Amino acid sequence: KGHRRGVWCVAFSPIDQVVASASGDATIRLWNLKDFRAIRSFQGHSSAVLRVAFLANGMQLMSSSVDGLLKLWHIRTAECAGTFEEHSSKVWCVDIVGDRMVSGGADSKICPLSGMMGTQRGVGTWNKLYQSC
Amino acid sequence: KGHRRGVWCVAFSPIDQVVASASGDATIRLWNLKDFRAIRSFQGHSSAVLRVAFLANGMQLMSSSVDGLLKLWHIRTAECAGTFEEHSSKVWCVDIVGDRMVSGGADSKICPLSGMMGTQRGVGTWNKLYQSC
Amino acid sequence: KGHRRGVWCVAFSPIDQVVASASGDATIRLWNLKDFRAIRSFQGHSSAVLRVAFLANGMQLMSSSVDGLLKLWHIRTAECAGTFEEHSSKVWCVDIVGDRMVSGGADSKICPLSGMMGTQRGVGTWNKLYQSC
Repeated sequence: KGHRRGVWCVAFSPIDQVVASASGDATIRLWNLKDFRAIRSFQGHSSAVLRVAFLANGMQLMSSSVDGLLKLWHIRTAECAGTFEEHSSKVWCVDIVGDRMVSGGADSKICPLSGMMGTQRGVGTWNKLYQSC
Repeated sequence: KGHRRGVWCVAFSPIDQVVASASGDATIRLWNLKDFRAIRSFQGHSSAVLRVAFLANGMQLMSSSVDGLLKLWHIRTAECAGTFEEHSSKVWCVDIVGDRMVSGGADSKICPLSGMMGTQRGVGTWNKLYQSC
Repeated sequence: KGHRRGVWCVAFSPIDQVVASASGDATIRLWNLKDFRAIRSFQGHSSAVLRVAFLANGMQLMSSSVDGLLKLWHIRTAECAGTFEEHSSKVWCVDIVGDRMVSGGADSKICPLSGMMGTQRGVGTWNKLYQSC
């Protein structure tokens, strides 16, 4: 049930007793801190996931990957809540402050996203603010 | 108006509706979050900029680079407010807490800086605390 | 008295006027901000130290290394307070929140640790929460 490639990022939930991990095996996994069992696997990236972070009071995850995608995930269902294909190469960096997110990539682009919280089943939706530059 | 090489770091201002980005094209750029246009370009590094961070309540930027330099910049004018040449090789890491900054480099040195806030046009000046070690 | 290889991480103490640095020379060093002299050297890793962070209100350090080890150190004595050998390869990432720590490695494992604060000479002890996965 564990990862099959190196783990690039780990992050505690700000709310629940869980940890998320991002791996070279292209998945994100969620671990229960009570018994440290894998409780979710988030699949959809086609290449190494470099970073994972909790959003929306721990109800969503953001992931960025070597495949050039930013993805948002619902914690409870492991469904992908959104895919942003702005980058044509590796997403190297992300900054998140409140309901604003910005990413930078190997393609020399930066991509801003804006979130609207609590719109659906208690979780937020994120949208491109503008065309990336 | 965008970057010409990969983006290594992005950071939201703590105050204004702007984002800074650091690129392999040796520049830092500042983007307006309202329309996501590039509003400043900070030029002076001779090699990839690895990290950028806001200082002094968002009125200054710090950048660290593969060229071995730490630079400080005035947001409003895009002028370089200071250059620290302590490192003879890549600046790999920086920690900033309040008016204290410390960097570490590929040259095995660490360099401490101390800031004095609000001394000139509302922005701070930074000085070497000691000879780097 | 300085490092002999590149410096991968620097961190200010949250309490004392000191800075810790992690180096490719396999040591962590502690520097006094008053005169920037090296006041401690923490030896025990066999390979580059990638990350260092303060714990327990600045009384302990955590280090993670290319040698696959997580180590905890007493600031005052420079003694190693614990070694965690869960990883068989480079420890790439660590997240620390309060008395919980989790690491991820090139071996595809993640390792959770739990701290108990203030149990001995004012400093905490850390334990494996579970077998790593």
